[in-house]
Amino acid sequence: MAALSFSPGLEGVVAGTTAISSVGKEQFGLTYRGYAIEDLAAHATFEEVAFLLIHGALPDAGEYARYRKRLAGLRELSAALKTVLEQLPAKAHPMDVLRTGCSALGTMEPETEAHGAHQIADRLLALFPGMLLYWHHFHRDGRRIETASAEESHAGHFLHLLHGRPPGELQRQAMDASLILYAEHEFNASTFSARVTASTLADFYAAITAAIGTLRGPLHGGANEEAMRLLGRFASPEEAEEAVRAMIAAGEKIMGFGHRIYKKSLDPRSPIIQQWSRRLAEAAGNPLLYRISERIEAVVRQAKGLYPNLDFYSASAYHLCGIPTSMFTPVFVFARVAGWAAHVIEQRSANRIFRPVADYTGPAPRPYPPLATRG
Amino acid sequence: MAALSFSPGLEGVVAGTTAISSVGKEQFGLTYRGYAIEDLAAHATFEEVAFLLIHGALPDAGEYARYRKRLAGLRELSAALKTVLEQLPAKAHPMDVLRTGCSALGTMEPETEAHGAHQIADRLLALFPGMLLYWHHFHRDGRRIETASAEESHAGHFLHLLHGRPPGELQRQAMDASLILYAEHEFNASTFSARVTASTLADFYAAITAAIGTLRGPLHGGANEEAMRLLGRFASPEEAEEAVRAMIAAGEKIMGFGHRIYKKSLDPRSPIIQQWSRRLAEAAGNPLLYRISERIEAVVRQAKGLYPNLDFYSASAYHLCGIPTSMFTPVFVFARVAGWAAHVIEQRSANRIFRPVADYTGPAPRPYPPLATRG
Ligand SMILES: CC(C)(COP(=O)(O)OP(=O)(O)OC[C@H]1O[C@@H](n2cnc3c(N)ncnc32)[C@H](O)[C@@H]1OP(=O)(O)O)[C@@H](O)C(=O)NCCC(=O)NCCS
Ligand SMILES: CC(C)(COP(=O)(O)OP(=O)(O)OC[C@H]1O[C@@H](n2cnc3c(N)ncnc32)[C@H](O)[C@@H]1OP(=O)(O)O)[C@@H](O)C(=O)NCCC(=O)NCCS
Repeated sequence: MAALSFSPGLEGVVAGTTAISSVGKEQFGLTYRGYAIEDLAAHATFEEVAFLLIHGALPDAGEYARYRKRLAGLRELSAALKTVLEQLPAKAHPMDVLRTGCSALGTMEPETEAHGAHQIADRLLALFPGMLLYWHHFHRDGRRIETASAEESHAGHFLHLLHGRPPGELQRQAMDASLILYAEHEFNASTFSARVTASTLADFYAAITAAIGTLRGPLHGGANEEAMRLLGRFASPEEAEEAVRAMIAAGEKIMGFGHRIYKKSLDPRSPIIQQWSRRLAEAAGNPLLYRISERIEAVVRQAKGLYPNLDFYSASAYHLCGIPTSMFTPVFVFARVAGWAAHVIEQRSANRIFRPVADYTGPAPRPYPPLATRG
Repeated sequence: MAALSFSPGLEGVVAGTTAISSVGKEQFGLTYRGYAIEDLAAHATFEEVAFLLIHGALPDAGEYARYRKRLAGLRELSAALKTVLEQLPAKAHPMDVLRTGCSALGTMEPETEAHGAHQIADRLLALFPGMLLYWHHFHRDGRRIETASAEESHAGHFLHLLHGRPPGELQRQAMDASLILYAEHEFNASTFSARVTASTLADFYAAITAAIGTLRGPLHGGANEEAMRLLGRFASPEEAEEAVRAMIAAGEKIMGFGHRIYKKSLDPRSPIIQQWSRRLAEAAGNPLLYRISERIEAVVRQAKGLYPNLDFYSASAYHLCGIPTSMFTPVFVFARVAGWAAHVIEQRSANRIFRPVADYTGPAPRPYPPLATRG
């Protein structure tokens, strides 16, 4: 039973079972509860997908209408939470604001039998965009915004609060598709961290707070921001090619490329977001960022055999939706909280505490030297 | 390389290497960087142990004096952090207050090259007791306390802020020993969660915030509070015996017993904290809680073959130090933050992202049904 061989980063190690998504499984591809990501991105809305993930099945028409309404009714922040957000400095990273806001909410609307995982999942889903944008607008221009909006969709709500006006239809659709793509991905690092936290029977907020912190790292969700910072440095595809070749020669990582699971194949989410990036560029009459992205993709593929992951073309897509770079990883949170919630609920349904072991490489037992004899 | 066999809860799975502590290793026992836990608990102070864990070696006399002074100088809260703490409800769980305070601090004193892991570790170590007790006293009797104190030791500082006066010498020593015992324990769930979070190259606060959330669960740090709630129900050892036998017969877990690693042997920390519990009981002329504890230990050992872990006798010891039950797990944080910090630093020194896989048990691929056709 005990697998004592060592696999750095737990690569290939089965850490549990899941019925939520299949990732990189032959003849399955990426599915959420059996539905192909290509179908979901083309035909579903993010609210449908969130319902599917958190509540276990696709909603019927009545459930769907009620669910959208329910989420729209959960968008307001309490006065205490607003005060907390106002204390977080203007220069803070938006991911740290979400992490703190989520944790604070756990003290204000704690998990109880009556207010359990499903309720809290819906509340966080509805609340996160407003949480971030309340803080953002307060610090940017001293405005205490209303976090309710007439937007029915999660995607529209976020863009509306960000820009202070209804988004264009193409932006709304691109954002919706992007949220679907980001919603769930099996035992990625942040989801795994949510499950580890949940495995001690800690509360729901503890698990989501841990996941937000984990997602922030540049090897994980933070990669979309890093990819944008890279793209933003170049004025032409040629310039990008030269610089990226030099980075590769210097052994530097190109953010937005590579994946633990999709090592020899394409991340199936990448061509979908790439199409959205292209459409947004065309509609804006501003093809430069997209062309730079394509060139970098070609260079990295040729020089390193690495494919872009979801984060790479998300960068140019989000930029064309007018989203500030520091909000790219928060948008990932707005979507992935659905997957995290589903995993916490699943972990609890058949729980065992995660407590692996370490190979000890430290000093042999030695006597304790009294303080006076040291130095 | 890939260990594809499945071990629930990663039991026995090697998830990495560590030079920080040896746990349950034959002929080693429990050591922190090679020093036996028995020696450290008997001869060292918690500050020495924290220095050993975080900074890698025992301090000499000069370093030790400077370190204590440095920690004592890091105990003050900023005005913004105080405002945040004041917003967290009086009824919040103290663990959720620490989780939120830690996360908020990460926005106010963010990690940078100049303010890195070692500095933040020391700051959190120095700050956590004051963070908790500022919130506590503010809500209990509207007082905004000073979180600096003239106490040189971490143990004394916490008890002083809690009770508003210098603690007795025995309490101070018991608390110091207890902090040493709680400071580090290899890849336990909270430490593992800190390493998972750190493995995406997330910031230091993200990792510690995750660990606090993970520790909160009753299968982990929360067990000391649950153990106290159990003890507190009984007026005599006989009553305790009867109730615990009934709980065992009903298949209930007895909190404070059992351990993933010490399944067939004693947790070496348990006899040490047991002695402190006995001494505190004797000094207080109040042996009841200790006697009840001893009886429960005998019953669980005889009926289930399970040994007490560190959390069991910590409960009575803390109670006899006048610590409210809801602060037991926070005290665990005050100590374990040293171990967490050491592990985050170690993880970063040879990092690979933690990204295991799951066995997929969900539905086979299926077509996406249009909304109108469902129901
Ligand atoms: C995603 C990622 C963390 C996967 O990590 P992993 O499974 O541990 O992959 P490895 O580090 O073993 O990568 C295998 C090889 O490809 C290289 N590589 C991986 N990603 C690379 C990248 N983005 N740029 C350049 N080289 C890369 C590694 O350096 C390694 O080379 P080596 O064998 O010569 O050391 C990694 O590909 C990465 O850091 N990518 C950039 C960050 C990113 O986009 N993250 C978002 C993921 S959705
Ligand atoms: C610490 C703990 C989580 C370890 O978990 P684990 O390694 O997964 O242990 P298992 O659940 O496999 O336990 C083995 C068996 O002992 C039983 N057991 C373990 N701890 C028990 C306890 N405290 N009371 C009663 N039975 C217990 C389990 O039910 C299991 O019995 P089974 O084989 O009949 O199902 C577990 O012992 C526990 O929950 N203890 C109580 C909480 C606690 O004190 N935690 C602090 C740890 S420092």
